[in-house]
Amino acid sequence: MADYVFGVDVGGTTIKMGLFDRQGNVLDKWEIPTRTENNGENILPDIAAAVDGKCSEKGIEKSNVAGVGIGVPGPVDGKGVVHKCVNLGWDVFNVSDKLSALTGLKVMAGNDANVAALGEMWKGGGQGFDSLIMVTLGTGVGGGIIMDGQILTGSTGAGGEIGHIHVQDGEPEACGCGNNGCLEQYTSATGIVRLANRELETNTAPTVLKKGQCSAKDVWDAVKENDPVAVAVAEKFGKYLGQGLAAIAGVINPEAFVIGGGVSKAGDVLLSYIEKNYTPVVFHASRNVKFVLATLGNDAGIYGAARLVL
Amino acid sequence: MADYVFGVDVGGTTIKMGLFDRQGNVLDKWEIPTRTENNGENILPDIAAAVDGKCSEKGIEKSNVAGVGIGVPGPVDGKGVVHKCVNLGWDVFNVSDKLSALTGLKVMAGNDANVAALGEMWKGGGQGFDSLIMVTLGTGVGGGIIMDGQILTGSTGAGGEIGHIHVQDGEPEACGCGNNGCLEQYTSATGIVRLANRELETNTAPTVLKKGQCSAKDVWDAVKENDPVAVAVAEKFGKYLGQGLAAIAGVINPEAFVIGGGVSKAGDVLLSYIEKNYTPVVFHASRNVKFVLATLGNDAGIYGAARLVL
Repeated sequence: MADYVFGVDVGGTTIKMGLFDRQGNVLDKWEIPTRTENNGENILPDIAAAVDGKCSEKGIEKSNVAGVGIGVPGPVDGKGVVHKCVNLGWDVFNVSDKLSALTGLKVMAGNDANVAALGEMWKGGGQGFDSLIMVTLGTGVGGGIIMDGQILTGSTGAGGEIGHIHVQDGEPEACGCGNNGCLEQYTSATGIVRLANRELETNTAPTVLKKGQCSAKDVWDAVKENDPVAVAVAEKFGKYLGQGLAAIAGVINPEAFVIGGGVSKAGDVLLSYIEKNYTPVVFHASRNVKFVLATLGNDAGIYGAARLVL
Repeated sequence: MADYVFGVDVGGTTIKMGLFDRQGNVLDKWEIPTRTENNGENILPDIAAAVDGKCSEKGIEKSNVAGVGIGVPGPVDGKGVVHKCVNLGWDVFNVSDKLSALTGLKVMAGNDANVAALGEMWKGGGQGFDSLIMVTLGTGVGGGIIMDGQILTGSTGAGGEIGHIHVQDGEPEACGCGNNGCLEQYTSATGIVRLANRELETNTAPTVLKKGQCSAKDVWDAVKENDPVAVAVAEKFGKYLGQGLAAIAGVINPEAFVIGGGVSKAGDVLLSYIEKNYTPVVFHASRNVKFVLATLGNDAGIYGAARLVL
């Protein structure tokens, strides 16, 4: 049985790479630039060269490498076919087959958010759970679903797209996806700022927050000081996210939610606003689902990618 | 390879049984009463006796039976353990193991709604799809999710509980589950009657519907005649169900919805009200999900149970 595995997380500007042992210990990690020019034709050859270079550097035989796992920023079906990764310039092709041909290694591919969920289950906040939903609260809201240890890929590779649940009728601003009233519009970092700016238009309570000049971090810092405007924003955030996650949990019946992304740095206070709105409306079978914080940060992707192979 | 398989669907008053060939042709089907007295201790022995009796009657050797599939009205985990089927008087035990010991056959168990979804995929309205969500609009609203041909069981056997998505704040009446504002409260047969009675309190348009005296069928019959009050009810029904299913579809990314249950007898007009509310709010990757009507009626359970084994 091979001793090593590579985990690769392809982003729009940087490719994160990790060399792992079978137990999931990271032996080395590094980054290479994502060359998106010419429809991203260099991306997979660059990854293959980096894998080869690392094997040479470490004196590792290819026969002692279990394979390469790779997460990419777009839908990936169960066979490894990507469907237009617009950030990378990619059209439709089989990433697994192509990278396998370039490296001579087994390759497993997945959507980056789904792969990060797998990483958090394996070595992060989701350890000990077999079925979980990861929610990444960053610039947008992403998600990944793991059931019985396997990624829920979806029929066209779009499984886990939690950020685009419709939660509000009558929203005048459009979401990045083209719809109006998506969960992401109120619970991402930019969504929280949107809620804060709207709250500041009507809420006259004394506050440290200033319209047009506050970040999501400012809001959560103020929540911790019981700032009344910030608390009102947190309540709205919690209601959108808690009710949205309750809808999903009632149907998926997971063991846990893992909350990650930059916004999750607010910590336990953030979880408390989600849970207080989740519990009253969720189907009883999923009422005791655990809420935990992600712990791997930007490394979740390389861990999960390595796990894909094992 | 064995030629035969039994499919069993356990209800609160009747147990439906079917003898199938491997291709899914029903060779015989019949019912036996569900004896719920003494905590339902006779139910599995009665099923075993019925299986034995049918084998004797047809001259089928046990060695030529692939197994028995069984759907039960409550949560069933991936190992066949039921968790309190209150309708049957059952506590917590392994149905598969117990019925297997009684019959000497391989037994596979699942929740009845999930098993019905599998039946519709195999031989009903969902044929040709590999990943689908079945929605049963009856006295309540049930559901089952099939991904890549497998039931999404959930961590405690409660996967697919679509009826209890929270869709309305401030609902004064409680749902059977104990929460308020569940999808079931507006889209089941009784839910449609609730919407109609409420509409009749304020909508003064001429209508054939009478407050306190109309059924769900009356409402849909009136919709087909363009009755303005009935149409207003159908719009509300469609918004609750269309938006609820959009939330689920965006995350699960299925190929199709199969709509069944007594309410679905209204036919294509019902689908049209769901789809017109689904399409504007669903994540684009799931916008072209197909809506189809279930075709197996009350036999979906025995078909799906047989399919569990094969």
